[in-house]
Amino acid sequence: MSIITLTTDFGISDGYVGTMKGVILSIAPDAKLVDISHEIEPQHIRQAAYVLHSVASYFPRGTIHLAVVDPGVGSARRALAVRTSHGFLVGPDNGLFTLFLADDPAAECHAITNTQYLLPRISSTFHGRDVFAPAAAHLANGVDLADLGPRIGDPVTFPVPQPEQQADGSWRGCVLYADHFGNLITSVTEELLQQLLGGGRHSVEIVIGQQCISGIRRTFAEGAPGELVALFGSSGRLEIAVTNGNAARALNVGSDSPIILRRVQEV
Amino acid sequence: MSIITLTTDFGISDGYVGTMKGVILSIAPDAKLVDISHEIEPQHIRQAAYVLHSVASYFPRGTIHLAVVDPGVGSARRALAVRTSHGFLVGPDNGLFTLFLADDPAAECHAITNTQYLLPRISSTFHGRDVFAPAAAHLANGVDLADLGPRIGDPVTFPVPQPEQQADGSWRGCVLYADHFGNLITSVTEELLQQLLGGGRHSVEIVIGQQCISGIRRTFAEGAPGELVALFGSSGRLEIAVTNGNAARALNVGSDSPIILRRVQEV
Amino acid sequence: MSIITLTTDFGISDGYVGTMKGVILSIAPDAKLVDISHEIEPQHIRQAAYVLHSVASYFPRGTIHLAVVDPGVGSARRALAVRTSHGFLVGPDNGLFTLFLADDPAAECHAITNTQYLLPRISSTFHGRDVFAPAAAHLANGVDLADLGPRIGDPVTFPVPQPEQQADGSWRGCVLYADHFGNLITSVTEELLQQLLGGGRHSVEIVIGQQCISGIRRTFAEGAPGELVALFGSSGRLEIAVTNGNAARALNVGSDSPIILRRVQEV
Repeated sequence: MSIITLTTDFGISDGYVGTMKGVILSIAPDAKLVDISHEIEPQHIRQAAYVLHSVASYFPRGTIHLAVVDPGVGSARRALAVRTSHGFLVGPDNGLFTLFLADDPAAECHAITNTQYLLPRISSTFHGRDVFAPAAAHLANGVDLADLGPRIGDPVTFPVPQPEQQADGSWRGCVLYADHFGNLITSVTEELLQQLLGGGRHSVEIVIGQQCISGIRRTFAEGAPGELVALFGSSGRLEIAVTNGNAARALNVGSDSPIILRRVQEV
Repeated sequence: MSIITLTTDFGISDGYVGTMKGVILSIAPDAKLVDISHEIEPQHIRQAAYVLHSVASYFPRGTIHLAVVDPGVGSARRALAVRTSHGFLVGPDNGLFTLFLADDPAAECHAITNTQYLLPRISSTFHGRDVFAPAAAHLANGVDLADLGPRIGDPVTFPVPQPEQQADGSWRGCVLYADHFGNLITSVTEELLQQLLGGGRHSVEIVIGQQCISGIRRTFAEGAPGELVALFGSSGRLEIAVTNGNAARALNVGSDSPIILRRVQEV
Repeated sequence: MSIITLTTDFGISDGYVGTMKGVILSIAPDAKLVDISHEIEPQHIRQAAYVLHSVASYFPRGTIHLAVVDPGVGSARRALAVRTSHGFLVGPDNGLFTLFLADDPAAECHAITNTQYLLPRISSTFHGRDVFAPAAAHLANGVDLADLGPRIGDPVTFPVPQPEQQADGSWRGCVLYADHFGNLITSVTEELLQQLLGGGRHSVEIVIGQQCISGIRRTFAEGAPGELVALFGSSGRLEIAVTNGNAARALNVGSDSPIILRRVQEV
């Protein structure tokens, strides 16, 4: 029994996701379907990339991850099926799988071109239904990646934002996205912070949205209610949160907003 | 193993849908449950009818579609189970299945009256739990439609809005509903447009919400960002969209708003 | 095949719920996963308690209910696994299971402490993934409750709000929460109302949010559109609703708002 996960920006009100599930179950009746998110911000490819990447490693080996955030549907952009060391990825060739490809340069990418494994009529507006759902379902049935289409060596990727050191020695990163709680997930990893702090008795000062935060907490509960705190979240990234509140709203910041980290002498 | 889909206006915050699933799995433990939408606008029977109808044909034959948008719960409205040429429908007799019945006049409609297949205590406010979920689960277990109750010949339907030709030769249709992206799904089908255009060198001009759109695009991506475009969507209906934007908000129109189509000389 | 239900305040946009499902399916591949709600108001333990309690009895015996509304994650609060006469409960020890424990004083509570059944690395911010999902999955695999950790006798509970009689003979209850339709679910049960009315020819007058409602309806449909009505909802509790409308918005009331019931002479 194969697991197919679904990640889209289709929302949950219209039946677009249900349609994809109907297509999958018509081809692979035993597939186990698991929703990751259908509330990706419309056409926000990078948000989908981060969300799916943070989830996928928790699924069993061989899981098929189907992702459709597809502003270029109907244009010449390719359809992609990828085998990584952990599982399969199916979706438009627009950068959605950037983080997986960065992790696993040996991942095998194929353009989906074999119409035998697609719906008979391909619309120009809904390839989630006509191309990606049937391709994922056939993979679940054991069809070989190479049967879906030719291997390609140049999948589209986006530049992964890496914090950069400034002239004054501080580091500048950015907010990747805000989650449901309004917590701001940033491009700053725990490794970067260790590098910034060095071995000495130093602490860190964080500037974001005109506010300044001193030090890193271990848990949300350590802050007083309403307090702005920084901590390493469940994905290993620095997150900015308001204890029992919503940091995105409190700071009025979102995707791509800058965050500055400065080393300060421990007092 | 049977598939049961669920379409409601119950939202996803309260556990009403979970309760229905618990009832189903208590009766039919092997049923495969697939959500279509629980975000139908409260009590918007026609939106539910269009959403479910656009999805159902993509499911395997024999699928049971359970739909509960039920402003008349507790009143004398009947409970309905229907066998179409493709699958089964279960829900209140209030027009929800209008489009299926229009497609398939030979569909067999039964009133659900046999209390043996319902929960022991029928509330006056939640027939999704007490009537429709158990009836659908028993169908999944192989209970015959006729065992649920007597066949009826007069299921409730709503008049399906058909575009009408105006005195000046233009056609007037309407918006059926706005989807998650703010795309406006209309009553205008591709066949109607062909009829309007005739065989000659003509194009079409569309008036909606005080805006005018020239011609039909093939894909969303053909428009410039922010441009208002018309195209035939994945359900075969004319849709009004804003490329990378939200047409419902941009035009401030919604269900039942008029749309006018005029034939113009190709330039 | 075991059923595991999920109730959280994680929302559905971020993949947190998908991550928990990946963890569960990695341990218990045959588990059947059913979402109850992921739209509990952030950190609103009591709302989650009421929602889950109103749903759980409709699931088959032996169902495992996993609930994570966890403002104290990372602090010293315990992790809990409970066997009731009906099924299992897994979640933080913060009152989430209060209503189940009130129903079933013989329920067996264990602190989850055996790291053998948890993820290898326990974060301080996401015990849904690291503690509760794996514990629930191992229960689904047949692991004994006692293997998860020691039995405890003092699970955290909150005081269940009970309506109280006032000096003037009226009863004062409160709103527990507003549901998706804006219906206000209250602490007043049908039994209490019978007690208030006594055997005679009396009716009831209800005051809420500066409005007064006379008598109890049987169905939503009995009110005129826009009318404020009181009726016993599907969970056996008094609900305040607006026919075809939203009572929470119309009255501008929510959780903990008072509701007063007065006995009046039937006219």
